[in-house]
Amino acid sequence: MRDFLKGAPLSALAAGALAGLLLAPTVAGADEGMWTFNNFPSAKVKQAYGFSPDPKWLERVQLASVRLARGCSGAFVSASGLIQTNHHCARACIQQVSSADHNHIKDGFYAVDLKDEAKCPDMEVNQLVQITDVTQRVNAATAGKEGDAFSAAQKEVQAAIQKECTGGADDIRCDVVELYHGGAYNLYKYHRYQDVRLVFAPEEDIAFFGGDPDNFEFPRYDLDVSYVRVYDKDGKPLNTKATYFPYASRDANEGDLVFTSGNPGRTERLDTVAELEYDRDHTLPDRLLYLTELRGILLQFTAQGEENARTARTKLFSIENSYKALYGQFQTLVDPALLNAKRKEEAELKAIIAADPALTQQYGDPWAAIAKSVEHYAVVSKRYEVLEAGRSFTSQSDLFTFARNLVRAASERTLPDGKRLREYTDANFPFIRQRLLSNSPVYPELERVLIRAQLVYLQRQLGPDDPLVRKVFGSRSAEQIADELVKGSTLGDPAERKRLLEGGEAAIAASADPLIKFAKLIDADALAARRDVEANVAAVQQKNAGYIAQAMFKVHGTSIYPDATFSPRVSYGTVKGYEQNGQHVAPFTTMGGTFERATGAFPFALPDSWLKAKDAINPSQKFDMVSTNDIIGGNSGSPVINKDAEVVGLIFDGNIQSLGGDFGYDGSVNRAVWVSVGALKEALAKVYHANRLSKELGAH
Amino acid sequence: MRDFLKGAPLSALAAGALAGLLLAPTVAGADEGMWTFNNFPSAKVKQAYGFSPDPKWLERVQLASVRLARGCSGAFVSASGLIQTNHHCARACIQQVSSADHNHIKDGFYAVDLKDEAKCPDMEVNQLVQITDVTQRVNAATAGKEGDAFSAAQKEVQAAIQKECTGGADDIRCDVVELYHGGAYNLYKYHRYQDVRLVFAPEEDIAFFGGDPDNFEFPRYDLDVSYVRVYDKDGKPLNTKATYFPYASRDANEGDLVFTSGNPGRTERLDTVAELEYDRDHTLPDRLLYLTELRGILLQFTAQGEENARTARTKLFSIENSYKALYGQFQTLVDPALLNAKRKEEAELKAIIAADPALTQQYGDPWAAIAKSVEHYAVVSKRYEVLEAGRSFTSQSDLFTFARNLVRAASERTLPDGKRLREYTDANFPFIRQRLLSNSPVYPELERVLIRAQLVYLQRQLGPDDPLVRKVFGSRSAEQIADELVKGSTLGDPAERKRLLEGGEAAIAASADPLIKFAKLIDADALAARRDVEANVAAVQQKNAGYIAQAMFKVHGTSIYPDATFSPRVSYGTVKGYEQNGQHVAPFTTMGGTFERATGAFPFALPDSWLKAKDAINPSQKFDMVSTNDIIGGNSGSPVINKDAEVVGLIFDGNIQSLGGDFGYDGSVNRAVWVSVGALKEALAKVYHANRLSKELGAH
Repeated sequence: MRDFLKGAPLSALAAGALAGLLLAPTVAGADEGMWTFNNFPSAKVKQAYGFSPDPKWLERVQLASVRLARGCSGAFVSASGLIQTNHHCARACIQQVSSADHNHIKDGFYAVDLKDEAKCPDMEVNQLVQITDVTQRVNAATAGKEGDAFSAAQKEVQAAIQKECTGGADDIRCDVVELYHGGAYNLYKYHRYQDVRLVFAPEEDIAFFGGDPDNFEFPRYDLDVSYVRVYDKDGKPLNTKATYFPYASRDANEGDLVFTSGNPGRTERLDTVAELEYDRDHTLPDRLLYLTELRGILLQFTAQGEENARTARTKLFSIENSYKALYGQFQTLVDPALLNAKRKEEAELKAIIAADPALTQQYGDPWAAIAKSVEHYAVVSKRYEVLEAGRSFTSQSDLFTFARNLVRAASERTLPDGKRLREYTDANFPFIRQRLLSNSPVYPELERVLIRAQLVYLQRQLGPDDPLVRKVFGSRSAEQIADELVKGSTLGDPAERKRLLEGGEAAIAASADPLIKFAKLIDADALAARRDVEANVAAVQQKNAGYIAQAMFKVHGTSIYPDATFSPRVSYGTVKGYEQNGQHVAPFTTMGGTFERATGAFPFALPDSWLKAKDAINPSQKFDMVSTNDIIGGNSGSPVINKDAEVVGLIFDGNIQSLGGDFGYDGSVNRAVWVSVGALKEALAKVYHANRLSKELGAH
Repeated sequence: MRDFLKGAPLSALAAGALAGLLLAPTVAGADEGMWTFNNFPSAKVKQAYGFSPDPKWLERVQLASVRLARGCSGAFVSASGLIQTNHHCARACIQQVSSADHNHIKDGFYAVDLKDEAKCPDMEVNQLVQITDVTQRVNAATAGKEGDAFSAAQKEVQAAIQKECTGGADDIRCDVVELYHGGAYNLYKYHRYQDVRLVFAPEEDIAFFGGDPDNFEFPRYDLDVSYVRVYDKDGKPLNTKATYFPYASRDANEGDLVFTSGNPGRTERLDTVAELEYDRDHTLPDRLLYLTELRGILLQFTAQGEENARTARTKLFSIENSYKALYGQFQTLVDPALLNAKRKEEAELKAIIAADPALTQQYGDPWAAIAKSVEHYAVVSKRYEVLEAGRSFTSQSDLFTFARNLVRAASERTLPDGKRLREYTDANFPFIRQRLLSNSPVYPELERVLIRAQLVYLQRQLGPDDPLVRKVFGSRSAEQIADELVKGSTLGDPAERKRLLEGGEAAIAASADPLIKFAKLIDADALAARRDVEANVAAVQQKNAGYIAQAMFKVHGTSIYPDATFSPRVSYGTVKGYEQNGQHVAPFTTMGGTFERATGAFPFALPDSWLKAKDAINPSQKFDMVSTNDIIGGNSGSPVINKDAEVVGLIFDGNIQSLGGDFGYDGSVNRAVWVSVGALKEALAKVYHANRLSKELGAH
């Protein structure tokens, strides 16, 4: 499953710190590229496929596409704000609207009437309405600065640009997007929608048929779809008459040209060799080890009973999904072929710069500077990861995340906008506020387990003699601390969170909530680690990656695409099979094939609805399909469209060969995996008898 | 903790397959080396320290030292068969003699009278009595053979040599030890003792004070000791008047020369670069990931209740210990310094061979042959690991291990001795038989969890479409299969195992036990994977590593020591501190320091006995100490002795810097960690008032 689940603001920072050089390969090969709307290679597509997307076509695609702010993509598919995305993109919502009595992950969900549509507590939908180049303004603000000063100046100018752009309106979201990781800065202005309601979701057993074993594999038989609807300020379905993709009347066929429009989360296709070696030797192994221990904990927690299984399911899914994706990346990096190719590429570009005194004068040796920042990161990473970034309390515990956000919001929101941590600026804060105020359920037993595990991890990573560890533990065990924090906290109550958020610094200072106190206890260390990484790693990498990008522009022009940054992109490709272990893999499966693959046991058990509908379903209807489109995690839920901008499918995955896509695109085997539009229509009609929805989609 | 816990026969094979070239570095530096008793560098020791261990001294040390066959070391320390070893070496026994009502891991154990000493169900003690060189006979048998034929011939000749040596007696154990991994073969003849009884063990809270966070660290405050006693055939304490180490009357001091005698399990100090890279990129990451997921599962299982915690504790300990050791090895290999040095060494030896036509003619390019075997291993390793070796059912489940051993014993024991799998030969089988017939408890709930986890892992590793996976799963889930296997099996009953063992093939064929059926179901695949690895990986590596060894003998003479093979070795060194993070670490801690380090919370909580005895204990008595002795996992329980062959300590660990010792020895920081003899005496007298034991040890 391709998603980008962790909260974007924090992990965007972490990604920035680690990814460093986010830049595209020299010249994109056939079908390669995650292109921005304002630099789409229409001529190249025309040359290859005889069709040239014009600005009007691109604008239409841009407006009908959406970003799900917590890590996915989607598309408007009706005139009334209906959005098509993946089941796994709406998973948190489906779980949140469930209860011990109604498990909609297991049983699916369908709102027979409009009034039955269920509010998703913390879903945010963004529709990109404008792109503006702000490179000069950003560069002017940071010119001549280094480290801390660079970081502060950049933060300030970006906050200012974003605030001007939103004009203080909560329903506008503005992001300064760092393209080519510092080679260019574009301001992306979105409509922000926070009233989103669940319309339909199938049972998990078919949405994620094959489970973890089949994840990232093909052939595949998944109905990984959900429908949600955006409501306007008056509580009415949003009018999207002018900006939606209709469902195509027929499926795509082998060889057809298809496009995807979505939000690839992160690629590292031109990280320097130093960065990739560090990823291979440290970042990826340590993340995998962190994740798989959590997987073990949650697998056993889940085995303890039905309610545990229900409450832990979404987290377990996210962990298993991340694990498999990162393991694929790790395999790509331990294969010497990739790193050898990168060494060659790097040497070539270095030689071009070295041969040109002007370039040498201008850029120096940005690779050496980046390598040095990697060395610094090696020293500080443990602390940073475990207190602030991808292996910290915020990466697992909802309750702790509330506490941290409340503690930081109280102090950060008193600062001038340009001095705040990015996620607390006026432009960005609505994203956090929504989550703080949402009524999504909290599961204390699960929280206790996650916080305990994180405490053990903290002690293991920093060692029992670390002063912070001593302060946290005192004479208590991880078990005792977790008990006290979870049992004593009232942060599970949205009203209490609202009170603390509105009460600001005074309320936080007066709070006796143990989680608030705990978040305060570790915050100085966490912020110090973050500031260190921002100034001495991220800023250095950004500045120097910017130099490398500029050198590349001089050499290759603008025929390159920026690395992914979880912002809207378009890719093109064709429906096409591939060779695997000496066998040809056909580019689609059929719905009939699903019944052959089912064993009756999890994760190969079909839901009752499908078993009952077996005779009604057209067995030769195409089910899941593959195409050469260049996608990555975050593209989940992206529409697949034809030349007429009609939906022919719904991206939900990439094949196992695509996991190396983080570092490079191999058109011979890299495939996007999607549900065909015909299968969506067939399932809604024949399995779910979802007539209201079928009608709205123009499928009869 | 340094041990080598997994059953020796199987993992010796796995180690052989992976380790490949087990050969010592060119010339051992100061204090470096795990020396055999028949090639000890007395002259070198004399030169450095003015003391030359003579043959009589060495013989005395050899006979007073013992090997605990399931993975540790020990020493006779009284005239009545009393053995000193580690708490963690007797851990399985301490747990086995516990019950839901008497948790001796938690509360400790002390037999006030001889009659209270508790039988350890499956402990085996080996005392080395003779070493014979059999190189010529082995080489003659395999001369001119390759792959399968090499492997079969070697197995046959080794079985014959071993059988002749034991003369059919169960109380003699004979191992043909492959030294220099094929450079030489020595026959080690041991007395085998299987009636071993627990005498004393402290509480885990002090035996393993500091738990996982402090494991492999120094300064340290652990009383990691246990005493067991060997009984003779008549059920009397073994007479060891002529062969024991007395306790020294005073502790060693900084700068003192000390020796250890023990059984280092495995080193890879001259693996080829190809093998080390494979370890770094595949073997170590995959083992770490396997282990840490199991850790997560058992941490959560343990948190579910006291009885779960008790029954899972030994396995959890073993997993955490292995994890930390392997993680240290991984860190050593991702540091480019080590591999670069190895590349240089390898190039030098290659150049010497290339420059000498006779050597070239004789040995060809053994490195290339080994690299090719590594490539083959890469293809077959997943199946081999998950069905037969270190990540298989036998690595976790006791019940499955019974089933496999019974199924294989039935068929293997009908074959001629020389054709059997090594562990089923007449010479080796008593080790397996002891375990099969022992009355050690089985914990069904834990077994269910471990088997379920292993099934999930099997499916994940081989994929759901693998024919064996399909056969195993059918229409059932891992949960269901594990339930059926554990609930339906009677293999937890020693009488049933005895019946099946004695009934041979007919009994196995007639058995309806689901675990027996399951073991049969997967056995053909497991054996096929093993035969493939034996013929195409292990045999190739052994043959070619033998060539490299012979080339090294020609270049360096016999001033080199063989890599560790879990057979008796001696090392020498001095009590000495070291520098760590810019600070000097003193070579010992004091018993008083323990109370300062205690926080009151696990794993830094002291047992009541210590809290009560605080005022009685001499606070300045040395507690744990370090010395430069070159040791590795398997040396756990080794005595530390002075020139007079008196016990001054008890090895239980190495520092974190020693984890790289798998690949090389760095005398500046590599340290063996041990309990001082003074602390042993002080604790027995002042904390435990173990008067009978104190008296037997000559401590008053």
